[in-house]
Amino acid sequence: MSAVAEAAATISQLRVQVSRLHAHLPAYGLVVWTAGNVSARVPGHDLMVIKPSGVAYDELTPENMVVCDLHGQVVEGEHAPSSDTEAQAYVYRELPDVGGVVHTHSPYAVAWAARGEAIPCVTTMCADEFGGPIPVGPFAVIGDDSIGRGIVETLRGSRSPAVLMQNHGVFTVGPDAKSAVKAAVMCEDVARSVHLARQLGEPIPIEQSAIDHLYDRYQNVYGQR
Amino acid sequence: MSAVAEAAATISQLRVQVSRLHAHLPAYGLVVWTAGNVSARVPGHDLMVIKPSGVAYDELTPENMVVCDLHGQVVEGEHAPSSDTEAQAYVYRELPDVGGVVHTHSPYAVAWAARGEAIPCVTTMCADEFGGPIPVGPFAVIGDDSIGRGIVETLRGSRSPAVLMQNHGVFTVGPDAKSAVKAAVMCEDVARSVHLARQLGEPIPIEQSAIDHLYDRYQNVYGQR
Amino acid sequence: MSAVAEAAATISQLRVQVSRLHAHLPAYGLVVWTAGNVSARVPGHDLMVIKPSGVAYDELTPENMVVCDLHGQVVEGEHAPSSDTEAQAYVYRELPDVGGVVHTHSPYAVAWAARGEAIPCVTTMCADEFGGPIPVGPFAVIGDDSIGRGIVETLRGSRSPAVLMQNHGVFTVGPDAKSAVKAAVMCEDVARSVHLARQLGEPIPIEQSAIDHLYDRYQNVYGQR
Amino acid sequence: MSAVAEAAATISQLRVQVSRLHAHLPAYGLVVWTAGNVSARVPGHDLMVIKPSGVAYDELTPENMVVCDLHGQVVEGEHAPSSDTEAQAYVYRELPDVGGVVHTHSPYAVAWAARGEAIPCVTTMCADEFGGPIPVGPFAVIGDDSIGRGIVETLRGSRSPAVLMQNHGVFTVGPDAKSAVKAAVMCEDVARSVHLARQLGEPIPIEQSAIDHLYDRYQNVYGQR
Repeated sequence: MSAVAEAAATISQLRVQVSRLHAHLPAYGLVVWTAGNVSARVPGHDLMVIKPSGVAYDELTPENMVVCDLHGQVVEGEHAPSSDTEAQAYVYRELPDVGGVVHTHSPYAVAWAARGEAIPCVTTMCADEFGGPIPVGPFAVIGDDSIGRGIVETLRGSRSPAVLMQNHGVFTVGPDAKSAVKAAVMCEDVARSVHLARQLGEPIPIEQSAIDHLYDRYQNVYGQR
Repeated sequence: MSAVAEAAATISQLRVQVSRLHAHLPAYGLVVWTAGNVSARVPGHDLMVIKPSGVAYDELTPENMVVCDLHGQVVEGEHAPSSDTEAQAYVYRELPDVGGVVHTHSPYAVAWAARGEAIPCVTTMCADEFGGPIPVGPFAVIGDDSIGRGIVETLRGSRSPAVLMQNHGVFTVGPDAKSAVKAAVMCEDVARSVHLARQLGEPIPIEQSAIDHLYDRYQNVYGQR
Repeated sequence: MSAVAEAAATISQLRVQVSRLHAHLPAYGLVVWTAGNVSARVPGHDLMVIKPSGVAYDELTPENMVVCDLHGQVVEGEHAPSSDTEAQAYVYRELPDVGGVVHTHSPYAVAWAARGEAIPCVTTMCADEFGGPIPVGPFAVIGDDSIGRGIVETLRGSRSPAVLMQNHGVFTVGPDAKSAVKAAVMCEDVARSVHLARQLGEPIPIEQSAIDHLYDRYQNVYGQR
Repeated sequence: MSAVAEAAATISQLRVQVSRLHAHLPAYGLVVWTAGNVSARVPGHDLMVIKPSGVAYDELTPENMVVCDLHGQVVEGEHAPSSDTEAQAYVYRELPDVGGVVHTHSPYAVAWAARGEAIPCVTTMCADEFGGPIPVGPFAVIGDDSIGRGIVETLRGSRSPAVLMQNHGVFTVGPDAKSAVKAAVMCEDVARSVHLARQLGEPIPIEQSAIDHLYDRYQNVYGQR
């Protein structure tokens, strides 16, 4: 197969995958209306596949996904891409290991973000998936690179695949789009459990050595190999 | 097509649209039983299409929608219209740009309304959709123009398409019924996130200039053009 | 039709209605597993139709409903009746206008019941449906008439069709089983809204004259006549 | 039928039962993604049937369940078993009356677990199902017998079929897998109701004699005999 045909085949598969992965967002209560999105890097190309802006989740199809370059310019597609495209493009440019990005406004995570407060690592699920606290990034408004820069700088200082952008919402990353969706689901679950725990007292801290042990095992042993 | 036939065709389309839009209300948890409704103005006519009173959401059809004039008198339909018809008719009379009105008792918004407290604008989603705090209108009982007047006076002093009526619930407006439904969904989401944030501390304020920037962009750039 | 055939036809219809009404209980989050039930009086006979004990909601059929007399003895049916049968039979014996009874452990209502605290009437929905606060009945254990007596004595002192039994759950009544289900749905919605309101401050009281006005209108004007 | 054929038939039935019972976990909101599991003892054999690790709930089939011995070694199955297999195997080894084990991270229960706080018995549902408070077990990390030992030691000191493992989640047991699933559902419901009650004050205690009465009746009279 020629390089061009191969890229087309990869994009075609990612259109299917990215459009379908969006179904997890409303199913897990991470988004309302059209306020969240999933994207995937096209491996080996400076391209990404992302949700069209303002289109309902039950109207997403492989065909209406948008292909952009890593500066957010549309390369292929009839629709305007998500308004978060520039921020996500920045993440793909700066973090070469990232293959998928998700953005949500999931309610418990937004509550932590509105106070500008990191979620402390007080459950084994948080240690497993995030390897420590879920960090907070800066307040940044849409329109230039400031959101993307805030995400990247915060993630570089952390093992967490999730960042809470202050007063805004959640961005998660992963080696592929499905991993980033999983991190978004887990982030809200942890945000909720720790919120509930804190409402009636102080959660018991977990020692750093136990966090390290749990994180290492979960990243390297869990699941099917 | 004659003017009469054109009006009939428009009403027929709005009966379909309004009956279907009601499905969002229980799906997003904004209502229980029959406690909420959607209406639409018939453009170019002093008429509105609204839910019948006390009928379950899964029994709504285009045929059982009720057509009223803008004083709430039934013009077409077998059923008694929603008991909120007079309030919504008042809104259509006074605010000519409003094409749709929604009423809910969504739980987090009702909590703010029961305290008579506006929802502060501390998330970017609130800035995007509401352009500032979500305001509270007066306590008013059903039976005369006082609910409608309270809605209109409160909305005139605000960029928000949503008002929390004290001790009561939410009324939202939009250029069409779908936009008003979206505002009702967003209102509950914001009411919940800010409620959760406030439970464990104080949310960080967003500067007015950032709110203005976000509101302007969202109203003018977001979505498909 | 003979009196016997007429009773049989009525029971047959109530078996269908009662078995179907149970679907609202899990759909509105009022129950988990098998922990709640609906019953209906057989009008003109000292009989009631009720859920079988410990059977899952999705296994309920008209055929497995149980017909009991108003002392809780099984008259017709292969299954043991709900363990709440005696309490509900007591209600039918003492309150001749009651045609339906519902029991749930809906979570926000149980929270008020566990503190032994009535729900104050601070929303128009509460005034509409309950005509004042939702009262609390005594702590009573299963096994004699004490639950039934607690329900009846509490309801006699109130306009509310719902009572929160201390440390236990909710019982609601109505002229028929569907009205009692509606009251159970509304009770949880009010319990939740007022809980949320109280978490961040004090709800504004509604004047008694406004409560009376709302209650009167809702009971006499709302819905289809 | 030979002993070998009989064991094979039992395992085959348990594969169906265990795979299907998992559907309750997401339906009741007890788990997200793949973070929870159900297992069953193979009666009369030192074997158990358990979920494969990291496989989505809607991809579970009788065929992909894993059969392990009671030291967690795979006896039959293409997949790696749940990472909780060793803990559950320990429970089956030490508690011969246990026929089913369930593990979840249900959010309200995790909140109590993160504070290391037992759930007080202040509702009749808690008395019925748990016969007293729901106890907390020690903090223990995965990788040796410490989770299993913590579960067993805590359950031995209690009538409760549920234990909250500190900073971690819930383990429940029962005479069969369905009973353990029921206990997991009830545990989260009780954890939520008591959490909500405590948010606005102190729940009223239930006297020990009443708890004993309720527990005895529910264990011996409730349901179909």
